[in-house]
Amino acid sequence: MRRYLLFAILAICCLSLSANAKPVIDHLEPMNWWVGMKNPNLQLMVHGKDISSLTPEINYEGVSLNRITKVKSPNYLFLDLTIAPQTKAGTFTIKFKKGKKVVLSHQYALLDRAENSANRQGFNNADVIYLITPDRFANGNPDNDTVKGYKDGLDRANTNGRHGGDIQGMMDHLDYIKDMGFTAIWPQPLVENAQDQTSYHGYSITDFYHIDPRFGSNEQYKALSAEAHKKGMKLVMDMVFNHCGSGHWWMKDLPTNDWLNYQQEGFHRCNHMRTTSQDPHASKFDRQEMVGGWFDTTMPDLNQKNPLMARYLIQNSIWWIEYANLSGIRMDTYPYPDSNFMAEWTKEVMNEYPHFNIVGEEWSVNPAIVSYWQKDKVNANGYTSYLPSLMDFPMQDAVVRALNEKQKDKWSDMWLPLYEMLSNDFLYPHPDQLTIFPDNHDMSRFFSQVHEDYNLFKLGITYFLTTRGIPQIYYGTEILKTAVDDHGKIRSDFPGGWAGDKINGFTGEGLTAQQKDAQAFMKKILNWRQSAEAVHHGKMIHFAPYQGVYVYFRMLNDKMVMVVLNKNAEQTEVDLSRFAEVLGGTPRSGKELFSGQTVDLSQKLTVPAMAPMVIDIN
Amino acid sequence: MRRYLLFAILAICCLSLSANAKPVIDHLEPMNWWVGMKNPNLQLMVHGKDISSLTPEINYEGVSLNRITKVKSPNYLFLDLTIAPQTKAGTFTIKFKKGKKVVLSHQYALLDRAENSANRQGFNNADVIYLITPDRFANGNPDNDTVKGYKDGLDRANTNGRHGGDIQGMMDHLDYIKDMGFTAIWPQPLVENAQDQTSYHGYSITDFYHIDPRFGSNEQYKALSAEAHKKGMKLVMDMVFNHCGSGHWWMKDLPTNDWLNYQQEGFHRCNHMRTTSQDPHASKFDRQEMVGGWFDTTMPDLNQKNPLMARYLIQNSIWWIEYANLSGIRMDTYPYPDSNFMAEWTKEVMNEYPHFNIVGEEWSVNPAIVSYWQKDKVNANGYTSYLPSLMDFPMQDAVVRALNEKQKDKWSDMWLPLYEMLSNDFLYPHPDQLTIFPDNHDMSRFFSQVHEDYNLFKLGITYFLTTRGIPQIYYGTEILKTAVDDHGKIRSDFPGGWAGDKINGFTGEGLTAQQKDAQAFMKKILNWRQSAEAVHHGKMIHFAPYQGVYVYFRMLNDKMVMVVLNKNAEQTEVDLSRFAEVLGGTPRSGKELFSGQTVDLSQKLTVPAMAPMVIDIN
Repeated sequence: MRRYLLFAILAICCLSLSANAKPVIDHLEPMNWWVGMKNPNLQLMVHGKDISSLTPEINYEGVSLNRITKVKSPNYLFLDLTIAPQTKAGTFTIKFKKGKKVVLSHQYALLDRAENSANRQGFNNADVIYLITPDRFANGNPDNDTVKGYKDGLDRANTNGRHGGDIQGMMDHLDYIKDMGFTAIWPQPLVENAQDQTSYHGYSITDFYHIDPRFGSNEQYKALSAEAHKKGMKLVMDMVFNHCGSGHWWMKDLPTNDWLNYQQEGFHRCNHMRTTSQDPHASKFDRQEMVGGWFDTTMPDLNQKNPLMARYLIQNSIWWIEYANLSGIRMDTYPYPDSNFMAEWTKEVMNEYPHFNIVGEEWSVNPAIVSYWQKDKVNANGYTSYLPSLMDFPMQDAVVRALNEKQKDKWSDMWLPLYEMLSNDFLYPHPDQLTIFPDNHDMSRFFSQVHEDYNLFKLGITYFLTTRGIPQIYYGTEILKTAVDDHGKIRSDFPGGWAGDKINGFTGEGLTAQQKDAQAFMKKILNWRQSAEAVHHGKMIHFAPYQGVYVYFRMLNDKMVMVVLNKNAEQTEVDLSRFAEVLGGTPRSGKELFSGQTVDLSQKLTVPAMAPMVIDIN
Repeated sequence: MRRYLLFAILAICCLSLSANAKPVIDHLEPMNWWVGMKNPNLQLMVHGKDISSLTPEINYEGVSLNRITKVKSPNYLFLDLTIAPQTKAGTFTIKFKKGKKVVLSHQYALLDRAENSANRQGFNNADVIYLITPDRFANGNPDNDTVKGYKDGLDRANTNGRHGGDIQGMMDHLDYIKDMGFTAIWPQPLVENAQDQTSYHGYSITDFYHIDPRFGSNEQYKALSAEAHKKGMKLVMDMVFNHCGSGHWWMKDLPTNDWLNYQQEGFHRCNHMRTTSQDPHASKFDRQEMVGGWFDTTMPDLNQKNPLMARYLIQNSIWWIEYANLSGIRMDTYPYPDSNFMAEWTKEVMNEYPHFNIVGEEWSVNPAIVSYWQKDKVNANGYTSYLPSLMDFPMQDAVVRALNEKQKDKWSDMWLPLYEMLSNDFLYPHPDQLTIFPDNHDMSRFFSQVHEDYNLFKLGITYFLTTRGIPQIYYGTEILKTAVDDHGKIRSDFPGGWAGDKINGFTGEGLTAQQKDAQAFMKKILNWRQSAEAVHHGKMIHFAPYQGVYVYFRMLNDKMVMVVLNKNAEQTEVDLSRFAEVLGGTPRSGKELFSGQTVDLSQKLTVPAMAPMVIDIN
């Protein structure tokens, strides 16, 4: 930081005041702010031709302009404001002066926060999140399929092209999502991706503050959130802080020499050695290549060690939370940015919203690596994280391995990979806070991962919807979408989302009997789960898998759910005496979810072949 | 413990004093003790017909008999003695009285300890341990091949039978072991295994205090240790506390009702669910089956929660350390006995001998599980361990996976499984204290694990002898022994160990050229390692594997070793600029171990195809 300040001072001295061109403001971000935030500080980034030749002034009760920072590019100013606690909402003018003359004026709004904004409840264990690739879900507004000025237009025949899905498409089908039993949606990034190609996925952000016009507008995004909340659903925003897209507006005029990593070099590929975060033997060279390296030539790597960049990103999150009434953030590639910055970011956001939730992506199947990043983990190298939730990749991998496992010998059991992975929960400070998922937008479809075995599919889905954690389901899983490896195909169009689709997943029209069955199966368990408090918050006890059957319980006070997963090709009798510590001495009975029948739990339980049982115990 | 005491009191009340038979002493253990131990307490187990009908008395300055414990069987007495700090060595009489009459007398020796016994140095990072299956190494004394009273006699044609190897055989070949460059030997258990069959391996102990006569005698074992020490080598004793053999003498007359786990049931198989030690979701049922279950019907599971059993085992270790001048213990199946007892045992042993070493076997390839058991690990469930070293099964597995890995795509590297496993060292409080090994007596031979690819063999052996940790090599590895899965075949006879052997691994007679080369290769690196202090204690820095080449450094002050492992089928040029943080700005050179040549380390290094380089850097 010290080095940066020195540079800033030098920069101020060297600026040539090109006084002839008339200054303009191209960007002033955040575009507004709110009164009554815990953190009274606000830093505005002002960008416009020769803006640094002007001197800004603010005159508004409670607002003070404490510092003006100039940088290498003369086209930026960073203004540090403090907003005193009792400041009233309103609009003030930022005057940009040359000498005593006001050359430019900008109206800036300080808004009142929505009621109870600070106490908003993030997504939690009672939720199941529906992950959507917006471009591929539903085309609600064909008018924005191709937008002037954006090179990457509609190209539905191309699996890597834009297919026209949009915010209106999601709005149109919120009832479907709600009826299925999902309680939150996580659309992939909707902010601008003004890239030449393959921009549909959203991870090459070219404007952190504006929804891509091919998806809609900021106002529409806000409306989506409002509509979802009205229906009792939450909105999770997908964010990327590691990099931007090469089409980002600031790429033509970078504020400083260290705005990007390897900025002078122009491009340096990331080595993806994520273990360098933890590894006591890692070289500095590898660590730097990991944190500073670029994902791709089209993804410049942001330098969050630059305090102006850090502030810009932190405020961006808070702005979206307030603006769009978010219930959570999913952070892309969590271990790739500077890890101290990520800690600072999560800390500040969670401090502002103590009941909010953030889930980070650390794609490792090693729970020791994933757990490193969770809040309250005591790490060997002293790193302190504030991230509440992580994507549970180790569990995803273990479920698939267990489902696909054949009985090898009498010493092991087909369910063992899963049993042993859950045992690793001792590594996590808060295993129940992990976000669990059968698949996502970056991996082969779950139904493909289990080789399109419908019984395995149901066993797996049952597991994810009854084990500890917060489940996330990728759109189309409920109609058995298939695809292997290829991103463009994995993110295929949801049938019925486009006018003229012959098959319609929303209405069921044209679906196969198996697809309809899968949809009904998931709808049943999802809706049941909404009130299954023992599944949300209950203690989990599992029993070592035995002869192809895996049994576990979720227990919360007098509520208890028993889950039995049978991988045998035959109906199996399970002796219940092993579970005496849970079922107790007295004979019990319960109601099985899928059959609707009452089952006797006094001695033996007959479990159908290759099927799950979910039993509410009285 | 409270429950046990209650039982002991009840037992005392219920004893029937069968006064007619003349009492005898069949066992009195430990058979002797030493003065000047840190722990002044000693508990004697006395076993003999109706011994509990007598009252023992001791009269020796400094020795007090504090408590006499009777148990369910009338044939046991447990005597708690205290030996005051200044007590002189000598022999005293334990008088067993009936009323006022001395019915039995037993002479008990308190010996002086060997000089510096308490400060003995355990095996450490400067050592390489040679693991031996004594029955299969060398038959030094054919006279003890079959011993009267022991059913399992010589049967060399049977891979699971006894082959006649013995202590004398090891004595005869200590020079070979020393010349090869090993500095410690770990023979599998040599104490009595009076089992009907498959007794050669030593893990069904039927007498914790006596060497099996088919291997030799206690005196011979002591002599082996003395001879090894004379040659500068250490002796590690293999111990088993989880179970005994079904032929153990006490099985016919168990002291208490809880001497064994599942004692009333007679047999209850272990579920081998070792993760129940850590698993926050584990059931009590599974935990009990893990800790209490029997390995086999012939391996009764000892109940270390019984304080008399606990004391018996702890003293047994200390007795052998003092008696045979041990430099370390290898503890079998570490997570299977009661874990609190194991903590108490290691704590007491390490307290008595602060520089001693103990390595425990936790056969898991998950470093999170293995690290749980290491001294100073802060565990989530509060478990505190005192075990200095563990067998590094995760590393063994990773090395073999990396060696056998083919280059899959440009995104990964063949060495990645190994690089990533070493990164997990953050899980261990003392990763450098792990015992590392290419294979052992329970797994396929290392040369077989790498599919008899001699280049992979050399790469792997080089890794184990230069990475962090204390290497252990299984006998015969140096002559490329092969065998897959089958225990009897894995533990095949060392050629030359038996009179009439046509091939002789000790002299080289009849070995293939490749075997001779392997032996010379290992001899070279083992002998070099003895003075390679940077390998013993140096900091390890590794670089992400790149294009089939894995490079790491060991650094200790001004000493530095660079290891380069090349898995490419072609000679490879390595750009050294990546290693600037280690090699520094000035041009360096070094001496390569295998070629003996000086190599220039200023710009590029040419590495032979499929080969290791070990470079001492000036």
